Amino acid sequence: MTKYKIVLQYVGSRYSGWQIQKGVETIQGNLCAALQTLTGETTSVIGSGRTDAGVHALHQVGHFVLSKKISREKLLRGLNGILPWDIQITRIQYVDLGFHAQQNAWKKRYQYRIYNGRGLSPFWHGYAYHLRSPLDLQAMQESAEQLAGWHDFCGFTATASKVKDFRRQIFLSNFTRRGRHILYRIEANGFLHHMVRNITGTLMEIGLNQRPISDIKKILKCKDRRIAGRTAPAHGLYLVKVWY
Amino acid sequence: MTKYKIVLQYVGSRYSGWQIQKGVETIQGNLCAALQTLTGETTSVIGSGRTDAGVHALHQVGHFVLSKKISREKLLRGLNGILPWDIQITRIQYVDLGFHAQQNAWKKRYQYRIYNGRGLSPFWHGYAYHLRSPLDLQAMQESAEQLAGWHDFCGFTATASKVKDFRRQIFLSNFTRRGRHILYRIEANGFLHHMVRNITGTLMEIGLNQRPISDIKKILKCKDRRIAGRTAPAHGLYLVKVWY
Repeated sequence: MTKYKIVLQYVGSRYSGWQIQKGVETIQGNLCAALQTLTGETTSVIGSGRTDAGVHALHQVGHFVLSKKISREKLLRGLNGILPWDIQITRIQYVDLGFHAQQNAWKKRYQYRIYNGRGLSPFWHGYAYHLRSPLDLQAMQESAEQLAGWHDFCGFTATASKVKDFRRQIFLSNFTRRGRHILYRIEANGFLHHMVRNITGTLMEIGLNQRPISDIKKILKCKDRRIAGRTAPAHGLYLVKVWY
Repeated sequence: MTKYKIVLQYVGSRYSGWQIQKGVETIQGNLCAALQTLTGETTSVIGSGRTDAGVHALHQVGHFVLSKKISREKLLRGLNGILPWDIQITRIQYVDLGFHAQQNAWKKRYQYRIYNGRGLSPFWHGYAYHLRSPLDLQAMQESAEQLAGWHDFCGFTATASKVKDFRRQIFLSNFTRRGRHILYRIEANGFLHHMVRNITGTLMEIGLNQRPISDIKKILKCKDRRIAGRTAPAHGLYLVKVWY
């Protein structure tokens, strides 16, 4: 048995997210099918985490086990040849049988891209969230900084979440501007379902002066999902890096 | 009567090029249809030049005439609302009735984007030509520089071309590298059918050591299309700017 760690990129637009499901196209489903075609083996690919439908990945990590040790070069070429153009593996490594893509990830970074201006270039369509009304970046930055550290993110997660421990440590939470593009970066030891999109949605409402900066502390304290902002659209979100 | 000058961007992938044709999707066809829907007037949109099927534009220019003077703001919003996501107007100006988008253009810049490396990121799929074999950039640069000045480009144009004067002045012809991306930029007072793609195809063959640098002068002298290189694929090509 050989365990393989893969790093991959995907344009999430066409997919119903990471997790394999019957009757719909998913990232995990395509990876498993490609492995089956190439090796004849039925194996499951475990990701560092699930990404929602429409979310992109510049760097997602997964692992799987095969009965044989296949040349990394052959496996990379073979899989990329079978996989659709919008899912491509960038790296394959042999890893210890103890390695676990989800459990061993100690930090992940997501990035949310907002295009804040009037006309969105067609070249950014589907790759950035288009918001015409000008955002107050200073208010958003001030709010974002308040998320750093250990907090209970129950108020920022999807209402139907089955997780019991909502505490997560945020290492980085800030905004940068590049022309009309506004990037929100968040690094944490783990993320809850819809957490980044709910945080981003709330921060955008603060940036639009639809709610005060003080709401961040309020939501973290009272843990009530209903007072947080809207869930930001999936197509602005990128999984950017996973650390082991 | 009011004449309008428009600047637009388009992702060329889904289109059979600029020029209106029956039964296929074109940029010009979509612009005319949007104008008809918005104003009720049948007018033709004249471009600075035709782009081939699949070619992108970061900055294309066109003009059209309407019987009424419509607010530029209203026209811009209205047209962009009707146009598909991959064709969007960035600017509208009122111009003299004497203005002609094709005849008054004194310089145009095209850019050809090559991704020269093993794995192409899915985010660049359809937006750069993927070439795995390493290119000799110095040989390509030396060859590109030989195109500057006045030359007869008969040898670099499509065989079925109906043009009679093949002389064009090249103001700029050079390569730049950004990581694994290689950009070829060419500025001229005009371009012949397939000219940039035939030049780029030839330069790539030189970069792959499939032909000598001296071939450029040979092709310019003997004006025989058959000795030039292959036509580079459309999806790496961008119309970048038009000067008036």
